[in-house]
Amino acid sequence: MSALQTPPRLAPDTLRIIPLGGLGDIGRNMTVFEINGKLLVVDCGVLFPEDDQPGVDLILPGLDYLDDRLDDIVGLVLTHGHEDHIGAVPYLLRRRQDIPLYGSKLTLAFVDGKLREHRLRDTAMYHQVVEGDTVVAGPFELEFFAVNHSIPDALAVAIKTSAGVVLHTGDFKMDQLPLDKRITDLRGFARLSSDERGVDLLMADSTNADVAGFTLPEKDIEPALERVFGQAPQKLVVACFASHVHRVQQILNLAVRHGRKVVYVGRSMVRNMTTAQELGYLKVPGGTLIELNDIEQYPEDQVVVISTGSQGEPLSALARMANREHPIVQVGSGDTVLLASSLIPGNENAVYRVINGLTRLGVTVVHKGNALVHTSGHASAGELLYTYNVVKPRNALPVHGEARHLVANAKLAQATGIPADHTIVAEDGDVIDLADGIARRTGRVDASYIFVDGTTVGDVTETSLTDRRILGEEGFISVIAAVDLRSQTIVAGPDINARGFLEDPTIFDSITEDIRGALNDALEEGVDDPHRLQQLVRRVIGRWVSRTYRKRPMIVPVVIAV
Amino acid sequence: MSALQTPPRLAPDTLRIIPLGGLGDIGRNMTVFEINGKLLVVDCGVLFPEDDQPGVDLILPGLDYLDDRLDDIVGLVLTHGHEDHIGAVPYLLRRRQDIPLYGSKLTLAFVDGKLREHRLRDTAMYHQVVEGDTVVAGPFELEFFAVNHSIPDALAVAIKTSAGVVLHTGDFKMDQLPLDKRITDLRGFARLSSDERGVDLLMADSTNADVAGFTLPEKDIEPALERVFGQAPQKLVVACFASHVHRVQQILNLAVRHGRKVVYVGRSMVRNMTTAQELGYLKVPGGTLIELNDIEQYPEDQVVVISTGSQGEPLSALARMANREHPIVQVGSGDTVLLASSLIPGNENAVYRVINGLTRLGVTVVHKGNALVHTSGHASAGELLYTYNVVKPRNALPVHGEARHLVANAKLAQATGIPADHTIVAEDGDVIDLADGIARRTGRVDASYIFVDGTTVGDVTETSLTDRRILGEEGFISVIAAVDLRSQTIVAGPDINARGFLEDPTIFDSITEDIRGALNDALEEGVDDPHRLQQLVRRVIGRWVSRTYRKRPMIVPVVIAV
Repeated sequence: MSALQTPPRLAPDTLRIIPLGGLGDIGRNMTVFEINGKLLVVDCGVLFPEDDQPGVDLILPGLDYLDDRLDDIVGLVLTHGHEDHIGAVPYLLRRRQDIPLYGSKLTLAFVDGKLREHRLRDTAMYHQVVEGDTVVAGPFELEFFAVNHSIPDALAVAIKTSAGVVLHTGDFKMDQLPLDKRITDLRGFARLSSDERGVDLLMADSTNADVAGFTLPEKDIEPALERVFGQAPQKLVVACFASHVHRVQQILNLAVRHGRKVVYVGRSMVRNMTTAQELGYLKVPGGTLIELNDIEQYPEDQVVVISTGSQGEPLSALARMANREHPIVQVGSGDTVLLASSLIPGNENAVYRVINGLTRLGVTVVHKGNALVHTSGHASAGELLYTYNVVKPRNALPVHGEARHLVANAKLAQATGIPADHTIVAEDGDVIDLADGIARRTGRVDASYIFVDGTTVGDVTETSLTDRRILGEEGFISVIAAVDLRSQTIVAGPDINARGFLEDPTIFDSITEDIRGALNDALEEGVDDPHRLQQLVRRVIGRWVSRTYRKRPMIVPVVIAV
Repeated sequence: MSALQTPPRLAPDTLRIIPLGGLGDIGRNMTVFEINGKLLVVDCGVLFPEDDQPGVDLILPGLDYLDDRLDDIVGLVLTHGHEDHIGAVPYLLRRRQDIPLYGSKLTLAFVDGKLREHRLRDTAMYHQVVEGDTVVAGPFELEFFAVNHSIPDALAVAIKTSAGVVLHTGDFKMDQLPLDKRITDLRGFARLSSDERGVDLLMADSTNADVAGFTLPEKDIEPALERVFGQAPQKLVVACFASHVHRVQQILNLAVRHGRKVVYVGRSMVRNMTTAQELGYLKVPGGTLIELNDIEQYPEDQVVVISTGSQGEPLSALARMANREHPIVQVGSGDTVLLASSLIPGNENAVYRVINGLTRLGVTVVHKGNALVHTSGHASAGELLYTYNVVKPRNALPVHGEARHLVANAKLAQATGIPADHTIVAEDGDVIDLADGIARRTGRVDASYIFVDGTTVGDVTETSLTDRRILGEEGFISVIAAVDLRSQTIVAGPDINARGFLEDPTIFDSITEDIRGALNDALEEGVDDPHRLQQLVRRVIGRWVSRTYRKRPMIVPVVIAV
């Protein structure tokens, strides 16, 4: 990441745009807009950690940037209800509880569930909006547009200011025959761009910008799903994302057609689908749903279990089925498991572990790798070209993606005629100022990862993670000795303990004597600083372990003076 | 894994087959054949560790099973020179150095390089074979067949015994127009199966058994490679596997056609390609190769760098280029990097990290995800069907794969008419006995993972790995105190140190006092066992950390009596 560089003082009627997350990662989406002293925030999501962030539960966007400006925030717009767009809302509201929240009905319902868990519900200021609405929040006029995505009720937002108009797509795709008939409002985009002001800046979802062509329509996976239902002779378990209401609707429809009752398994699946049904986003014919505890009352071929765990999460219902550890749902020879989900990069090993576990039990596993049972929720290159050609923005700032996705999106923008110097490939923390129809990078602010670990937020740092990586790869060796500085003698130890290294304690016998000798020599020479004695111990054992085992475990020497 | 179960005493003229690796994993391939007191081993490879085996360098097949039988081994057949088939040879030869090694010229040359590094070369007993050869090793008559794979000179082996004939394919595919014109010898398979004895058991490569259709021919990726060469305006770096001689040959041919000199980067690339060229497997026109140090003497558009690092290995040449840390090869805006390689599951994050790093530098990155620049080395379902239909074995024992691959391969065997009860889906350690044309599972032996870690083999155990996983996720807290048991007082400490936990040492202030109090109380009550005092310390701090932080770091209490 490039060095920080204080942006210039913001001139009146200039719009400042600061992505605090989501540019460089798929996740923790958040952008701050500022004009004439007021701030608008769009999305506030989490990023899930990778292998090199061990022990971390969640990663937040650069919320710290807002700490001095909390009172200037006039609103937080939430484009849709996925975790990478709403997951960090509680952490922002902990800093100021009454930030006005703008979002669609389902999005706010999912946010509400989250705020309840964090005991922030009572103070939340909800402003429910629907596509077509225009609302004013301080110096920002917001217009909302329907977009189609892998969760219902997603919105794009046009942000109209005295400095110009920005269109932020949120996450979207352009399925032309979606299950709920709610298509991305390309006509609205066209109207916005035909307006005399036009669109100064388009911020479009980059997730699938490096995928050629068009994202497969949801309805095109129905034949493969139908085939699974038609061929499953016994128990059928379907795993998918707990927020993918349309996918669950497809499964429900198939269940009714094939005479199977439906049971939800997994806390988030039960909670979200209950919410979606209550709000009318999920249509469930009466008598279809049954309780998990009643499952044994139905023949195996008359039930379908809809479960979480499609990403191989080790504690999920599906992983427990694969390990024969689920308390109620047992699967075995002749049963079928369908993973109607994507395979998020980084989760492959976990997912294949579950598939192998199920296969060993004799289960037939149908997944994205062997059948057309999933399609993405994001616009591919072809759809983005349509979007650029309809919106005709003066500038493009690709959002939502790793560097490779943002660059691919920028190339599409340029292919439709946006000049390269009006196409900004930015990263989190970059400051972009828009005035007179031109967007320019003018500085950088801190947008570092904030780690949530257990109950702590921001207390686990890169230093802790570096230590964890060393400990996790190599383990540690501790050497403890007590010395009497007056008599210049060792009174206890040295005792060597190792964890995560080799199991056999006798390997330390000879080096224990070497350390004893080195300590005695140093004490005799009059060294009376326990810290220097510790350094000596570290050197002696560090050299030995590196030479003998070609390993570099963490060395923890403790010399206590008594 | 099912429990061990001693197999019955082996009757005369019964062939026993024990997979000691490769059935349940892609890697550590090894199978032992036994008849009339003599043993033949086929392949001896390594498995590369996953995230849940932190710090491990390599995983060996179940070599320990052979420890009591080393003198009975009449030969080790190596089907080809990939690490997952030859990587563990040094570890077997350390146990008995003069085991006769059978393999093709290139395979033995790669083995030879490996044995030199392990200082085992002088005692190695090489028996070079070529397709069509028949050799006798004790009670085993071996016939070798050419097979086509992603490394030259790969062989299948028929093992003929008084109990029946087994055909082991090794790794193979059936490219019908391969670059070196050396096709898998289906005519030979047909002759073997038409012989009056026929084939009792087929052991076929399962890696791509769950991939429908046919593996794309190597030559079909040439247009995409050609396009990369044609469009690269400046520097061009191609990364591929260091053993993929044919892929390198394609790159070399393109380099010559496009007037670019070639430089190898990466130790294994230099070593393998030098060997391949010396032995005639790689044809390099004179004047094509240049030295890395001379690269600056040529214009950027007249050089191609062929590099290791296609799997994102953090220390590889390519990863260092992506981080701007390579001492000689710098890449930047306008340069092109081509990853002409597969993306092995589990490596996605590492590979995308490299791609994102290069993209941020302005490099155009072409890879499997956005162009047709790689094809697999393994037979897909369609090719396996041909194989079963030509070989017509009485029994099938799928090899080389995770459970999902083995099951998919078994289903293909059954589809061609092999009865289900003659189709054995086994796992490492299963004992299969073949007699009278019937193969049956008769027991289980130990084939556990053997971990190589630094210089140690087998000394790192599951216990060490469990400790590493805890340390890597949560870190540790150590509490050290010295007590005088006579005076019943604490003479030093308690000192609390944490690593990989939270950074702020002041968080321990209050709990330090609690521990001091608890120790003092216990000492006053007459507790004089340091171990019991340690347990007390563990309880006090463990409860506190779990309650306060909802974390479970490793707690290391040390109470020294002085």
